[in-house]
Amino acid sequence: MASKRAERAVGEGVVASYLHHNSRVGALVELNCETDFVARNDDFKQLAYDIAMHVVAASPVCLQEEDMPADCELTVAEACLLSQPFVKDPSKSIGDLITEVIARTGENVKVGRFTRIEVGV
Amino acid sequence: MASKRAERAVGEGVVASYLHHNSRVGALVELNCETDFVARNDDFKQLAYDIAMHVVAASPVCLQEEDMPADCELTVAEACLLSQPFVKDPSKSIGDLITEVIARTGENVKVGRFTRIEVGV
Repeated sequence: MASKRAERAVGEGVVASYLHHNSRVGALVELNCETDFVARNDDFKQLAYDIAMHVVAASPVCLQEEDMPADCELTVAEACLLSQPFVKDPSKSIGDLITEVIARTGENVKVGRFTRIEVGV
Repeated sequence: MASKRAERAVGEGVVASYLHHNSRVGALVELNCETDFVARNDDFKQLAYDIAMHVVAASPVCLQEEDMPADCELTVAEACLLSQPFVKDPSKSIGDLITEVIARTGENVKVGRFTRIEVGV
């Protein structure tokens, strides 16, 4: 059933941003779900915000293993957002957080895109 | 003199973000200058924030004319961030705002990068 859910279209969602207090680095994250109802939920928005904060702190190279550049010298857990240990609770990966929100909401949930900009980097 | 200034390295700056109140679209902008002194100035940070808000509202395709995709059917003033009329004061372009801050600070100032994410777009 979980795998069926993973095929369902995720056309709704939210965009969250996080800016480090030094104003030198920020991130933008799109977190997708199936319905506007879930997108408007505060827990869902908080997760998007937490992932944006994580992206600022952990500088992921790509979303998942199949997106890794061929010349990447990092491990999957170092490079891929979904495999990285969550900075606020390293016992879970970002992928684990997504799995949890899928279980809680009953919807398919995916990180659509993320971007990170740091001055001069 | 202004053209000499335009060649000076812009290694400092700030990142600003703007999120639309519906949480469905956001932007991230890097605004560069020469010194940390200017980067820490509130006017400079406000300009970066205003440009991020503009990017959300005006959806620029690229930074400037030389970056326009060959198949772009928009005009330069429609497609290019620096040529677009500023949404908060259409009598000026974003490029005009940059020219003004260059004059005020005496430093070279450039938009480094910008990115815009909208749910499902």
